[in-house]
Amino acid sequence: MPQYTAPLRDMHFVLFDLLKVEDELKALPRYAEVDRETIEAVLEEGAKFASQVIQPLNQVGDREGCTWHGDGVVTAPPGFKEAYAQFVEAGWPSVSCDPDFGGQGLPAIVNNRLYEMWNSANQAWLMYPGLSHSAYECLHAFGTDEQKQVYLTKIVSGEWTGTMCLTEPHCGTDLGILKTKAEPNGDGSFALSGTKIFISAGEHDLAPNILHLVLARLPDAPAGTKGISLFLVPKFIPDANGQPGERNAIKAGSIEHKMGIHGNATCVINLDGARGWLIGEPHKGLAAMFVMMNSARLGVGMQSLGQAEAAHQNAVAYAKDRLQGRAPTGAAQPSKAADPIIVHPDVRRMLLTSRAYTEAGRAFTTWTALLIDREHAHPDPAVREEADELMALLTPVVKAFITDNAWETTTLCQQVFGGHGYIAEWGMDQFVRDSRINMIYEGTNGIQALDLLGRKVLMDGGKKFGRFAALIQGFLKEHAANAAMAEFNGPLAKLLADTVALTQELGARAQSNPDEVGAASVPYLRIIGHLAYAWMWARMAAASLQHGGEGFYGTKLATARFYFAWLLPETAHQFRAARAGAATLMAIAADDF
Amino acid sequence: MPQYTAPLRDMHFVLFDLLKVEDELKALPRYAEVDRETIEAVLEEGAKFASQVIQPLNQVGDREGCTWHGDGVVTAPPGFKEAYAQFVEAGWPSVSCDPDFGGQGLPAIVNNRLYEMWNSANQAWLMYPGLSHSAYECLHAFGTDEQKQVYLTKIVSGEWTGTMCLTEPHCGTDLGILKTKAEPNGDGSFALSGTKIFISAGEHDLAPNILHLVLARLPDAPAGTKGISLFLVPKFIPDANGQPGERNAIKAGSIEHKMGIHGNATCVINLDGARGWLIGEPHKGLAAMFVMMNSARLGVGMQSLGQAEAAHQNAVAYAKDRLQGRAPTGAAQPSKAADPIIVHPDVRRMLLTSRAYTEAGRAFTTWTALLIDREHAHPDPAVREEADELMALLTPVVKAFITDNAWETTTLCQQVFGGHGYIAEWGMDQFVRDSRINMIYEGTNGIQALDLLGRKVLMDGGKKFGRFAALIQGFLKEHAANAAMAEFNGPLAKLLADTVALTQELGARAQSNPDEVGAASVPYLRIIGHLAYAWMWARMAAASLQHGGEGFYGTKLATARFYFAWLLPETAHQFRAARAGAATLMAIAADDF
Repeated sequence: MPQYTAPLRDMHFVLFDLLKVEDELKALPRYAEVDRETIEAVLEEGAKFASQVIQPLNQVGDREGCTWHGDGVVTAPPGFKEAYAQFVEAGWPSVSCDPDFGGQGLPAIVNNRLYEMWNSANQAWLMYPGLSHSAYECLHAFGTDEQKQVYLTKIVSGEWTGTMCLTEPHCGTDLGILKTKAEPNGDGSFALSGTKIFISAGEHDLAPNILHLVLARLPDAPAGTKGISLFLVPKFIPDANGQPGERNAIKAGSIEHKMGIHGNATCVINLDGARGWLIGEPHKGLAAMFVMMNSARLGVGMQSLGQAEAAHQNAVAYAKDRLQGRAPTGAAQPSKAADPIIVHPDVRRMLLTSRAYTEAGRAFTTWTALLIDREHAHPDPAVREEADELMALLTPVVKAFITDNAWETTTLCQQVFGGHGYIAEWGMDQFVRDSRINMIYEGTNGIQALDLLGRKVLMDGGKKFGRFAALIQGFLKEHAANAAMAEFNGPLAKLLADTVALTQELGARAQSNPDEVGAASVPYLRIIGHLAYAWMWARMAAASLQHGGEGFYGTKLATARFYFAWLLPETAHQFRAARAGAATLMAIAADDF
Repeated sequence: MPQYTAPLRDMHFVLFDLLKVEDELKALPRYAEVDRETIEAVLEEGAKFASQVIQPLNQVGDREGCTWHGDGVVTAPPGFKEAYAQFVEAGWPSVSCDPDFGGQGLPAIVNNRLYEMWNSANQAWLMYPGLSHSAYECLHAFGTDEQKQVYLTKIVSGEWTGTMCLTEPHCGTDLGILKTKAEPNGDGSFALSGTKIFISAGEHDLAPNILHLVLARLPDAPAGTKGISLFLVPKFIPDANGQPGERNAIKAGSIEHKMGIHGNATCVINLDGARGWLIGEPHKGLAAMFVMMNSARLGVGMQSLGQAEAAHQNAVAYAKDRLQGRAPTGAAQPSKAADPIIVHPDVRRMLLTSRAYTEAGRAFTTWTALLIDREHAHPDPAVREEADELMALLTPVVKAFITDNAWETTTLCQQVFGGHGYIAEWGMDQFVRDSRINMIYEGTNGIQALDLLGRKVLMDGGKKFGRFAALIQGFLKEHAANAAMAEFNGPLAKLLADTVALTQELGARAQSNPDEVGAASVPYLRIIGHLAYAWMWARMAAASLQHGGEGFYGTKLATARFYFAWLLPETAHQFRAARAGAATLMAIAADDF
């Protein structure tokens, strides 16, 4: 059975050695009082919740799954409800929420690391509160004062949970053609009718009420994405005391049988004249939903980071324990029948791949969480704007690069186990199956790549990308005189220059043929991901050198070297693919496929 | 529900346009009478069996799995037994077997294409007869006349099935430390005791008897792999009439719950003084087992090729059918709400990746099957020796390169389906889960890479590799004057030259540090795989040009161009990884992981 221990030492390194968040938070009035001690204490408690409460439920959740009882009734796997009660009791849902609505007002960097741990422990379970948190973001930004009082406080406390209802049977990516209708009831509410599918946490027994955020069309809606509105549709309509009252006509129709995340109920949701209330302005639902969606996309990146870390820990433990064969350079443990498999270079290649990607992912997502904190709380509007633009640029990278990497690394970690990796009892296949969904939902990774290149990079003529490039340039300048950094900064500088050139080239190509964006987008996202990770590894190397480069810091430097030697060179492939051009993809007529 | 239609047109192209097997077979006296008409007729019947009989059982096999009834009794999923009876009735087990034992004596190239189809239709089901066929190879090579008469004939007819019993709880890769014991009974038989695990098709209700081939140690066995002997241990000991008689003390202890191939029973097999008979010489069991193992490794490559083709067909159908969004260059079907997703360049990238790998895999495995036919039946010993050496070199490539590619491509095909790809009903996740085992069993892909670089390439000073390189050189020379081939031959020639240089470099490095072999082995296998596929694509392009380069041949040329532009450049990454060196992998002490 898999084990998990939160990597607190590495989290402390990222937070305090690398990002110096104590200084950063002092610049943000809202968080100026949050000190290292507080952060460490919260993370330590969160780590206990991960290892002691929800990780032990991960395999049973996979094995038993959710249960459909008919008539819209669904129960989560054994233990899920009790764990959720403990979660609410401990106040975890409110950690980074607005104190005006009962939140604890801690910065995103704290919540972010908690989410990594809890995702390592049990992704399927965490999706229940995770979707609530995305609903929180949306309602906090767009809800009326009344909606906030009635609903947001319940989400902050965790008393009720939330969902996102976007996809319909005939459309997911292309929301412009969705059909669910909202007719005004004349009392300020609307009657919603339609069918939604793939609704995660859509029905369950963890909370007495569920707040569905539903995309639908008003009668006078223009066609396409400009005619979509967002509605709040509670499972039970709150009574005068704010308690669950009348059962609303929104009901689960069935639950899906899936490859993984069996512990989370993926529902068909039928709306049959369900009462709902508009969130934000009519026909502006997609913009409101994107607040939730962007939060969810970052959350999906954290899901895969968590899964990758958990898989890595178990693969390392197995590789140290399993005796097979001898070290190529001679027996390492001659007194035993064989050596542990960690002596083999190729086993180390697998472990180091997962380690290098996971540690870079941790640094990257902690840094992006800091951008969120700046965006929300920095007094200087220029700093807020920069953070906002960087987040717009990097959200698809967090979502797609981390989830693709985790697919590779959970697979490698499973591979370390040999045949045992394929057997359910060992739990390694669950990491692979659970993390697979992360490449698909909240916008497939192909859609993320299109968003990155087409919308975020090319639509503003490279302004956002330029901001990111300038940060890396600044780092290179700062460390230009440091000879010990040359081995990292050389390849980083080359990658940056090559990426700038490629970006310009693709911009020019896109002018002549719009297919060129779609053709280059996935390789381009891989390149930007590596640019971010190469920068993170160079920064981590610099911080490690500053701390003497021995022990923990020596291992960090060795992992940085591995990254530059083994993983970064993937860009040699991706640059060629990014330049291969649309013609090679479009040459065959659809009928000839 | 997934569909499958055998790609007969492409198989005909590979067999007759590309490899000209009619001429090839004329040079092999044993197969000289096998003409195109016969081959096409057999393949057509095999295709019907695939689509009509076993493909419809693939999803039910996954959903229901095998059933453990206690006391060693296991039943296969609904319909499996009846399909197997049809298979035996039709004479399919004997297609490529020796006529002296009831076989039909058709060449390996025919059986090989049948296996591709049947694997596309139902990998889990095909493992029952597939393992029998590996047992056939072993018993045919090493069995006594009496063993052949009693057992081999039953395997050829399909009346009984076979297994390979190698792995034990404490060892799989490192068979040198296996513990199962064989004590002489004094009557020529042995009493075997021990526990074997991961025994595919280890127990079932498809056949009245199961022939286990078991590795064990004799009392006087030297330590390590030089003390392993191979035994034939029937589930029921044949009586005087060759019918299943006394129940032997070899029994399934349980079946595993796995990530995939649920339709095949993966058993713990307990031997409790079971009667067995030596196959081949004492202590030479590993060599005998390797005959079976090499056959199985090639079979595993075919499993993944089959899975990849089936996934590809369904992804193509979905991409043509699913309406979402508009073509970037303007609506392709303005009268509909949206365009089919095949208009999107990135969807095509996914489909073409799977197409290019699958078609190259088909060409490659048909060519290697032809090598097997030459090896077995060519009158010239020099030709036999060349074929034998090429097969030794390329068996790990067939096993590992195809299975790694299929993992990537079944995942991409699942991705084409978006959220639906994650839902069991659509069947795409089964291709991913089933094909995952292929990277693990019969020697993990890491072990294949070590076998390739350490044993096959470096141990004979590059002789076998030189034979392979010479074939490619010959092709390049033959087509040097063909301007239309320059776009393919240029990159192929460069890759060949680079690979020759790398091989020499790694040979030199391995002298100074044995860890260098393990460090470079996986990237090296990827490079050799691409060298083989680049050659196959160049050959297919040449054949397509010879046939006018239009229609089917035009599509083939376009796919070749895609391969060279998008997939071959992976080697740019792998060359750098292959040269990264062991030091970057071994720098961290095991305890610091």
